Formats: sequence, C-alpha cells, structure tokens
Amino acid sequence: MKLHPITAESFAIIDAEIGPHTLTDSEYRVVRRVIHSTADFEYKDLLRFEHGAIEQGVQALRAGIPVVVDVQMVKSGVTGVALTNPLYCALDAGTMPGPGETRTEAGLNALVKRFPQAVYVIGNAPTALHALARAIHRGDARPALVVAVPVGFVQVVQAKAAIGKLAVPQIRVEGRKGGSPVAAGIINALASLAFGEDDEKRAAQI
Amino acid sequence: MKLHPITAESFAIIDAEIGPHTLTDSEYRVVRRVIHSTADFEYKDLLRFEHGAIEQGVQALRAGIPVVVDVQMVKSGVTGVALTNPLYCALDAGTMPGPGETRTEAGLNALVKRFPQAVYVIGNAPTALHALARAIHRGDARPALVVAVPVGFVQVVQAKAAIGKLAVPQIRVEGRKGGSPVAAGIINALASLAFGEDDEKRAAQI
Repeated sequence: MKLHPITAESFAIIDAEIGPHTLTDSEYRVVRRVIHSTADFEYKDLLRFEHGAIEQGVQALRAGIPVVVDVQMVKSGVTGVALTNPLYCALDAGTMPGPGETRTEAGLNALVKRFPQAVYVIGNAPTALHALARAIHRGDARPALVVAVPVGFVQVVQAKAAIGKLAVPQIRVEGRKGGSPVAAGIINALASLAFGEDDEKRAAQI
Repeated sequence: MKLHPITAESFAIIDAEIGPHTLTDSEYRVVRRVIHSTADFEYKDLLRFEHGAIEQGVQALRAGIPVVVDVQMVKSGVTGVALTNPLYCALDAGTMPGPGETRTEAGLNALVKRFPQAVYVIGNAPTALHALARAIHRGDARPALVVAVPVGFVQVVQAKAAIGKLAVPQIRVEGRKGGSPVAAGIINALASLAFGEDDEKRAAQI
C-alpha cells in the first residue's frame, strides 16, 4: 500500500508544479500518473472524464471484468502491475482482417463479441476506436469504460469525437496527443484506486 | 519501400507544421518519426544527435549488431518492423539484482558483458542509463550508439547529463521528456534509413 520512494518523489514534484486546477481528487490521481509517464503537463488540460468514468472503471476492475487493449505496447505497460484482470490485446487476437479492415480493428470486433462489457483501452489505433464507437452505437458493445487515447495526425481527432458523442463512461485525451504510456498510466492509476498503491511491487520489477 | 498512405499523410501534416529548423535531412527523419509517435512538436528542439550518431546507428543496424533495450514496452514498439537485428531486453534478462540495484540495471550490466558494442536504447529506466554511462566510462562498454531517452522527474536529467559528457555516438532527449514511443520511434527511423521504408509492412501488422 506504500509508494516507492522514487514514485513518491516524482509525485511530490508534480504536485509542486501542477498549478491551479479543478480536478477531483481521483481525477487528479489519474492526471498525475499520466504526467509521470510522459513528463508532459499539458495532459492536465487535455484529459476528459465523462459519464462516471472513474467510478465505473474502478468498479469494473474490482469486479474482475476483462481489460481489452489495442496493441502490445499498451499491454506491456500494464502487465505486472496491480492489475489482475484478464487482459486481451486486439492486435494479438489473430483475427483475419476483412477487406479495408486493419488487423487491430478485426481483433477488436472479435473481442467485442466475446466481451461486450469489458474495459476498452485504445492507445494507438484510431481504426479500433472508430470500430468500437460503431459497435457501441449499434448496441453490440456496452463497455464498463472506454479509455480513448490514440495518438497521431490522421483520423485520431475524429475517432475521439465519435466516442465523445456516446453516453458511455470514458476517459479521453482531447486532440492529437495520447499513446501507450498515457493508456497504461490511466489503467495503472485506476488499478491503484481500485486495489491500493502497488508501486513497491511495480518498482521492484523495473 | 513505399510509405503507407496514412503514414505519408501524417508525415505531410508534420512537414507542413514543423516550421523552420536547422536539422539535417536524416536528423529530420528521426525527429519526424518521434513527433509522429507522440504528436508533440517540442521534440524538434529537444533531440540531440552527437558523435556521428545517425551514421553509426545505421551502420550498426546494417551490420546486424544486437540492439539492447531497457524494458518490454520499448521492445514491443520495435518488434515486427524493419528491424531484423537480435533484440535483447534488460528487464527480461532475468539477472538477480545486487543490493541497491534495480532489475533493469542488473540486466543491463549482464548484457553489457555479452554485447559491449551493441546499440543501447534506454526509454524508461534512468538507473539503467546511469549504469551504462559508468560501464562506458570504465571502458567495459563501447556502444555503436546510445539512444538516451528515459522519461521522468527523478534522476532522469542527471542520467542524460552523464551520457552527454561521454564521447559516444548518442541520440538524446534533453530534459524530462522521452519514453517508450520516443525510443521506438528513433529505432524505427534508423531502421528506415538503414533498410528503406517499410511502413506498408508495419501498417499491415496494425
């Protein structure tokens, strides 16, 4: 339940430099973890928490609900931490893509069929986020939480906007920024909120 | 040898928005790949290329020299791309840490003994970068290239400064920023320079 000294020191630096904000305590804990993994204070203003995202995410993790991520880098970032939930990676699902479909999108669609109520974490592939938005819109997916943080210049802002229009619990990064460390930071923060800090264990593994 | 249309479109957007700079053509290709993976234009001003870094890195990759990374997230980011070099991960090396030593540091020291002239890529663990700097200083390591881009608030700036003092080919991010996508972006850019663009293959895998 104790923070590793280096994590505690990092958090103290962020606390000292963050400046004024209107985040709730648990929102700030998520934001701080993302800044810790990127050294980018812009995330204070870019993260959105909507439709009871943190409460729903914490409850889902505690309930042992599966976590579906888009790519291996995100999976690597959450493996070995407090998280004990089943973890699936869309890109590893081995699903053959249909015409005009990416492998991540095909894998995501296959996982939506198996786990319509999972926690979905998209750190890279806007095509996967678009596919998830369509599945939610059709009523085929009812995620406990969507972490919508792909990074990039093409279709990223649009995919985030498509999710943003849906009344689904979501943590989103506005604009082009995001990526695997952001996605992993959010899930690790939620795991800390759900199960207590586990940085001694995490740090010992690094 | 062709860029995937989405990568080409992303690169065109970055080209249009980058503004004036004094980077060489190959330096710019590395910077652009890092901006592509982070959507953070600050990297234009934060990346340093010293002691013939790009030439040495390209030559090492072409010569089939091993690449040693610090953590799994970096490994995930470079796996399956153009890179065909042997790839080792310090944290996966399974070396038992000594007193006061992190697992990454212990793994790195073990890999330095096996591959003193490898390409070393540190995206996360400042302890591993410090250990590498000490090994170079002692003459136990003579890396073909060091990619020195750990991210964070504690010991990160100091570890980068320790590498910066050494006359070793290096690509470095000044300050606190960096991380796995930055490290992977740099290696993927060098692989493109060494072996040609391979984004059709990469994109087909995502």
